Amino acid sequence: MTISADGLMPFFAMDILKRAKALESQGRTVCHLEIGEPGAPPAPRVIEAVAKALPQPQGYTNAKGLTELREGLARYYDDQHGVSVDPDLVLATMGSSAGFILAFHAAFKPGARIAITRPGYPAYVNTLLGLGFGIAEIPVTAADNWVLTGAQIAAAHARQPFDGLLFASPANPTGAAVSRDQLNDIISTCQRLGVTFISDEIYHGLDYSAPSVSALELTRDAIVINSFSKYYCMTGWRIGWMVLPETLIRRAEILQQNLFISAPTLSQIAATVALGERHYAEEQKAGYARNRRILGQGLRQLGFDMSADGNGAFYAYAGIGRFSNDSMDFCLSMLDRAGVAATPGVDFDRTDGNSFVRFSYAGTQRSIEEALERMRSFLKDGG
Amino acid sequence: MTISADGLMPFFAMDILKRAKALESQGRTVCHLEIGEPGAPPAPRVIEAVAKALPQPQGYTNAKGLTELREGLARYYDDQHGVSVDPDLVLATMGSSAGFILAFHAAFKPGARIAITRPGYPAYVNTLLGLGFGIAEIPVTAADNWVLTGAQIAAAHARQPFDGLLFASPANPTGAAVSRDQLNDIISTCQRLGVTFISDEIYHGLDYSAPSVSALELTRDAIVINSFSKYYCMTGWRIGWMVLPETLIRRAEILQQNLFISAPTLSQIAATVALGERHYAEEQKAGYARNRRILGQGLRQLGFDMSADGNGAFYAYAGIGRFSNDSMDFCLSMLDRAGVAATPGVDFDRTDGNSFVRFSYAGTQRSIEEALERMRSFLKDGG
Repeated sequence: MTISADGLMPFFAMDILKRAKALESQGRTVCHLEIGEPGAPPAPRVIEAVAKALPQPQGYTNAKGLTELREGLARYYDDQHGVSVDPDLVLATMGSSAGFILAFHAAFKPGARIAITRPGYPAYVNTLLGLGFGIAEIPVTAADNWVLTGAQIAAAHARQPFDGLLFASPANPTGAAVSRDQLNDIISTCQRLGVTFISDEIYHGLDYSAPSVSALELTRDAIVINSFSKYYCMTGWRIGWMVLPETLIRRAEILQQNLFISAPTLSQIAATVALGERHYAEEQKAGYARNRRILGQGLRQLGFDMSADGNGAFYAYAGIGRFSNDSMDFCLSMLDRAGVAATPGVDFDRTDGNSFVRFSYAGTQRSIEEALERMRSFLKDGG
Repeated sequence: MTISADGLMPFFAMDILKRAKALESQGRTVCHLEIGEPGAPPAPRVIEAVAKALPQPQGYTNAKGLTELREGLARYYDDQHGVSVDPDLVLATMGSSAGFILAFHAAFKPGARIAITRPGYPAYVNTLLGLGFGIAEIPVTAADNWVLTGAQIAAAHARQPFDGLLFASPANPTGAAVSRDQLNDIISTCQRLGVTFISDEIYHGLDYSAPSVSALELTRDAIVINSFSKYYCMTGWRIGWMVLPETLIRRAEILQQNLFISAPTLSQIAATVALGERHYAEEQKAGYARNRRILGQGLRQLGFDMSADGNGAFYAYAGIGRFSNDSMDFCLSMLDRAGVAATPGVDFDRTDGNSFVRFSYAGTQRSIEEALERMRSFLKDGG
């Protein structure tokens, strides 16, 4: 495992994807369960709107993004979460990725420490370290359904204080989603400790037991980050958004002007239309819900360790203790020998991740079934 | 002038654009000479290719970008600059904006000092300060045709050392372009001083006296940043590229995986096709060349101070000493009273910028002529 001098590590999912694409270019077929991206294109009306706009020049937009998009997002919070959001506090970003960079630099000084859960989205650690921030990892466990509590935050902060907490629900890689009470516990603990709360809500909408709760329902001090990538099937479009507290919006806007200028214009047009096409997104979600059951049952039958399916996002975080104690080696040999691409747990957890693999069920039902079939042979042959 | 605690300032061009759009929404017409973006859409074949790809899912690409695009860029360096570039050293970015972030974090530790010219692209200062780096400004002057020399670099470094030099030719806002000998002087000085050279080549192709020289013709130690925004008329598409030294490419790739995942996929497809449509780009450039003469002559007739037209990019950096000693005030009143949007020199030069205004001539000939006409009345009425 390559670790550079300052602790920066590759995002292994991307390395696995690269290797998978190399195998495909040699004529092999690969079941792609490594990357968290929907297999479907955006809704037909989204494509029509972009096709219509295409012949016009697509210049920069205002740094914050198209007014129509930001007004649409304000309506989204009203409709889905029953909260009123000023469109002027909304900023369209180049995916949630750019949202994180803006959030960190808007809210903190370089060198500040930001807490995250372990396991968690690997770009959290790598982006924070890469940008010169410090991290504090708070472990969550399968035994607790991977849920973070206020008490864990307070205990971690007592051990070594931190300035911010970046938290996702539903979470990557576990699919764990917190209830309203649980989120309130987290947010009120942060407020009590003077910790800035950043809510990564990218998997909102992809919930299989109860609607996701936005931090905006509970506080106006949080930075909320979201994206059109997952629910609206627009990963490669690189379009997301943030909602910022009044105290940070101007600084975030200035950072956006300078760091990024504005989010891709066609993607902003697409996103504006996508907000009205939730019925299409719900159809995709029904597919993920089917995949979730098939994959969960299949993995358990094959001997993977996973007591319950996550209740959000489109990931199964499965224990591989019965097969291997080296998740990278397991994933590489499963890719090379069985043509099944999955992401090693070390991507999400540098301490305990060697015992886990993340499977994405955002693809087609056929690719899930084919992957389970291939894994059956692979594991029968000794893994 | 708002300056935040850490020296971060708005990109005033974007604020002017915002105000201009607000005026337009009230029914006013505005001549847009404030933003450096072409008025034309990309080449017809670019639009066709995107329209064709549109119905397919546009997922993430490899972090470095589509192979076809990187191979196309390697051919570009062969064709235009006579140098052989390994496509594996090329990385597609979300505009040159993301390229700067990747370059700074790939090559330097937070807190490192990077030298830039003054005047210069405002996002240089603001991005560096916003990301926690230090800056060293090296003044260049109209008397020297805004050209930077190795001797000036060495003298600045002797006063206070720096770790990197970020340099653009053709330059924003002056349009100054260096010759091969001049660029060699700059690069060899940096090598002698152990200063990492970052070459911003975003205005390459937009040269009116001699072809732009790439740093890659002279060294393989430089980080080269470029973009499809200007020459290929794709500002809002947010697509650019970098060429990195072998020692930095893996770190830059890891940063890209984590900070951005990948550049917008449709924009990568568009860019791949755009590389083959240089005849279309040359047609646009012929228009800028006409505008350059019209605007330069017109400004001088109106009493602006500008001894010669810049020999690249699409900007006129004009002295306003005869009219005002407050460039922001001058630009705001010219926008409000005459409907001509231009960018105050303070955007590019916090020290001497109050005596200058930047006009972009990337728009249509009619908008340039109309702007000159409006400015004539505006200045006649006392400015």
